[in-house]
Amino acid sequence: MTLDPALRDDFPGLAGGWHYLDSGATAQKPQAVIDAATQAMGRDYATVHRGVYARSANMTLAFEEARRKVAAFIGAREDEIVFTRGATEAINLVAQTWGAANLQAGDRILLSVLEHHSNIVPWQLLAERTGVAIDICPLTADGRIDLDAAEAMLTPAHKLVALAHVSNVLGSTLDAPRAAKLAHGVGAKLLLDGCQAVPRLSVDVAALDCDFYVFSAHKLYGPTGIGALWAKAEILAAMPPWQGGGAMIDRVTFDRTTYAPPPQRFEAGTPAIVEAIALGAAVDYVSAIGLDAIHAHEAALVAELRDALRSRNDVTLFGPEDSAGIVSFALDGVHPHDLGTILDEEGVAIRAGHHCAQPLMDHLGVPATARASFGLYSNSSDIAALLRGIERTRRIFG
Amino acid sequence: MTLDPALRDDFPGLAGGWHYLDSGATAQKPQAVIDAATQAMGRDYATVHRGVYARSANMTLAFEEARRKVAAFIGAREDEIVFTRGATEAINLVAQTWGAANLQAGDRILLSVLEHHSNIVPWQLLAERTGVAIDICPLTADGRIDLDAAEAMLTPAHKLVALAHVSNVLGSTLDAPRAAKLAHGVGAKLLLDGCQAVPRLSVDVAALDCDFYVFSAHKLYGPTGIGALWAKAEILAAMPPWQGGGAMIDRVTFDRTTYAPPPQRFEAGTPAIVEAIALGAAVDYVSAIGLDAIHAHEAALVAELRDALRSRNDVTLFGPEDSAGIVSFALDGVHPHDLGTILDEEGVAIRAGHHCAQPLMDHLGVPATARASFGLYSNSSDIAALLRGIERTRRIFG
Repeated sequence: MTLDPALRDDFPGLAGGWHYLDSGATAQKPQAVIDAATQAMGRDYATVHRGVYARSANMTLAFEEARRKVAAFIGAREDEIVFTRGATEAINLVAQTWGAANLQAGDRILLSVLEHHSNIVPWQLLAERTGVAIDICPLTADGRIDLDAAEAMLTPAHKLVALAHVSNVLGSTLDAPRAAKLAHGVGAKLLLDGCQAVPRLSVDVAALDCDFYVFSAHKLYGPTGIGALWAKAEILAAMPPWQGGGAMIDRVTFDRTTYAPPPQRFEAGTPAIVEAIALGAAVDYVSAIGLDAIHAHEAALVAELRDALRSRNDVTLFGPEDSAGIVSFALDGVHPHDLGTILDEEGVAIRAGHHCAQPLMDHLGVPATARASFGLYSNSSDIAALLRGIERTRRIFG
Repeated sequence: MTLDPALRDDFPGLAGGWHYLDSGATAQKPQAVIDAATQAMGRDYATVHRGVYARSANMTLAFEEARRKVAAFIGAREDEIVFTRGATEAINLVAQTWGAANLQAGDRILLSVLEHHSNIVPWQLLAERTGVAIDICPLTADGRIDLDAAEAMLTPAHKLVALAHVSNVLGSTLDAPRAAKLAHGVGAKLLLDGCQAVPRLSVDVAALDCDFYVFSAHKLYGPTGIGALWAKAEILAAMPPWQGGGAMIDRVTFDRTTYAPPPQRFEAGTPAIVEAIALGAAVDYVSAIGLDAIHAHEAALVAELRDALRSRNDVTLFGPEDSAGIVSFALDGVHPHDLGTILDEEGVAIRAGHHCAQPLMDHLGVPATARASFGLYSNSSDIAALLRGIERTRRIFG
C-alpha cells in the first residue's frame, strides 16, 4: 500500500476495527472535517453575505474560501462553482435550467447503460416536459461506456451527452476527453457525473474538456447536505434561475425582479454554510495526501481483491480489471443481501443491491450485485476480512 | 426573564460575552446540537436506507426518528414531512410541483407586502412559466397583514394564499386560522412561511388549518443545509416529482420510471443525513424548554427594548407592539449600516439591510432598517449593550 496506514486513525467512524467497504455509498469523515464543522457551528457561527458585524464578515470569507478550494480542486474558476445539496441536485439544476431553456422536441440526449438513477431520472423528467428524446449508449464487454458506439449514435440532434466519469457499480473510468470530442463534434455539451471520480482521480475540468461537472461532498470525505455543480462561465451566465429566494436576486419588486450573476443566481436562500466550510476542509485533507497517491493506493487494493476473488471458482467479477476503487461481484448461489448480512456479522460492511443503477442490473442480468468499494483508509486487512466472510458464507450456503 | 439564564452557557457561539441580536438571520447552536452532528459525522456515520449492515440500519432509524420529531413538533404525521435544504427550497418545491401541476393562466395567488423574497420570487418564476397572476395584500398601519383587505381581494380565481406566519422584519404574527378560513372560503390553499414562527411560537399545523408549512432548521437552533416542508398527506400524494434521482424512485427503466410515495418522492439523492439528526436534536432541545416559555421570554425582551427605544426621541419603531422576538427600527440621521458597524465595535450584532424584503422596504419608504432579533439565549444585558451602542452612535453622528 502506498499510503501511510496511520491515516486510518484520522477517521473516528472506523474506530473499533470496522472493515468499511462501502465508501462508494459514502465516505467516512476525517477528524479535520468534523472539527471544521464543529468550529463553524460553534465559536465561529454566523450567517454569510448579510451581516454588518465582523463574525459574519469572517464567516463569509470562510464560505467563499471554501468555494475557491473546490474550484482549485477541479481546475475551475471560483465563479463557476455552484453549491448544491449534492450531485443529484446539481444534475436536476442543469436539466431544469439549461435543459428546459435549450432543449426541445426533436433534440436528443445521450446517456449510457451504466448511469446512476441521478443521471437518468432528471433527463426523463425533462423529456416529459419538453419532448426531448433519450438514447442509451451500450457498454463494452468489460463494462466500459462504449465510445465507438457513441460515435456511431451521435447526430447533430444531440444537444447533451451525460455520462458517469467513474461507474458507481463497475468502477469503469470514462475516456472523458474522447467523450468530449465526440459530443462537441456534433455540437452537444458534455456533462460528467463525477461522484465516484473526485475521491479517486485527479480531476481537471479543463483537461477533461467537459461542459458540466457535478459531485457530492459526502463521497469526498466531506459532509452530507452539500455538493457542487461546475459549468463553464459562459454557460452558467446564460442559464435562467431555478429556485427563487434570498441571495439569488439583484432587486425584487412585485412588478419585476432581476437576478444576481452566477454562482449566486443558483444559490437561493441561506446556504449550507457549515457544510461548505467542512467541504473545504475535506478538499484540503485529500489534497494534502494527493489524488494520485490515493488512486494508486486504491488501484493496488482493487488488484489484490480481484486477484483473490478470481482465484475462487464461485465468484463472478463485474467491471474492468482497472476498475477505480470499486469491485462488484456475485457469489454463486448466494443473494448479495444474504452475503452482506453475513459479512456484517464479521464486521465487514459492503453494499448489496441495485446501487441506484437498475438499468445496469437489467443489462447484467442480475437483480443486485455485491459491491466492495475502497477509500483512502482501506487496507489489506479489510480485504482479508471480506475474504474470510465470503468463505464463511460459502460454508453456510454450501 | 422567564428562562434560566444558564441556558446561555449551552451556546459556544456566544462565548466571550457577545451580544448576538441577529437570531432572526440565524440562531446560534446549543452544544447538544453540535454534539449530535459530531457523533453522526463520526462514530455513528453511515449512509441511510440502503446498507445491509447494522451501522447503516441504525443510521436509518436515527434519520427517520428525526423526521418523527419534526412531525411531532408541528403536529404533523411523519409521512407528511419532506426534508429540504431549507424553507426557500421548500417553497420552490411547492411552486414547481403543486403549483406547476395545479395553477394556470387565469388563476391568482395572494401574497402580502411583507413577504420575504423566498415567498415572492418562487411565485414570480411560476407566474412566468404558467401565466398565473399575483396579488399583494396590504398591511395594517401597525404592520400586520391586513386580513380585512385579503377578504375583500380574494376571489374564486385564487388558488393559493402564501403568507409569512411571523414577519422577519416586523415580527408581526399572522392570524393564521382566519387566513385559512378566508383562503378555504374561495377554494384556495394556504401556505405559511414558518421560518420566524417555529423558533418563537408553538406551532400546530392542524390548529392553524394551513395546507403547506415550511421552515429552516438553522433558525430553529439547528444546522444549516436542512429544512422541512409539511403538506397535508393527500396534497403531497397528488404532487408530481420535482428532482429525479436515487431514493425517490420505485423502479427505473429507460422506458418508464415509477416513483416512490411521499415523502421519499421529494427527497432525491443521498439526504442531508447528519443535518436531519442534528435538526432532531434541536427540536428536542427547544421542546424541553418549551415554546410557550421561549415566547414569553422573547415577548418580555421585545417589550423592554421597545419601551427603551420609544423613550428616545430619535428612533422610529416599525411593527406592532406585540412583535414576536423581532424589533426593526431606524435611528434618525444614521444609516442602519453605520449603526450596525458601530454596534459591532461594542460587541453587539444586529442586522442592517433590506432583510430580503425589498417590497416591504419600499412600503416603509426606507432603503433598510436596523433589526434586533432575539433568541432563547437573549437577555437584558444584550438590550443594555444595544442601547449603549445606540447612544454612542448618536454622539458620533451628533
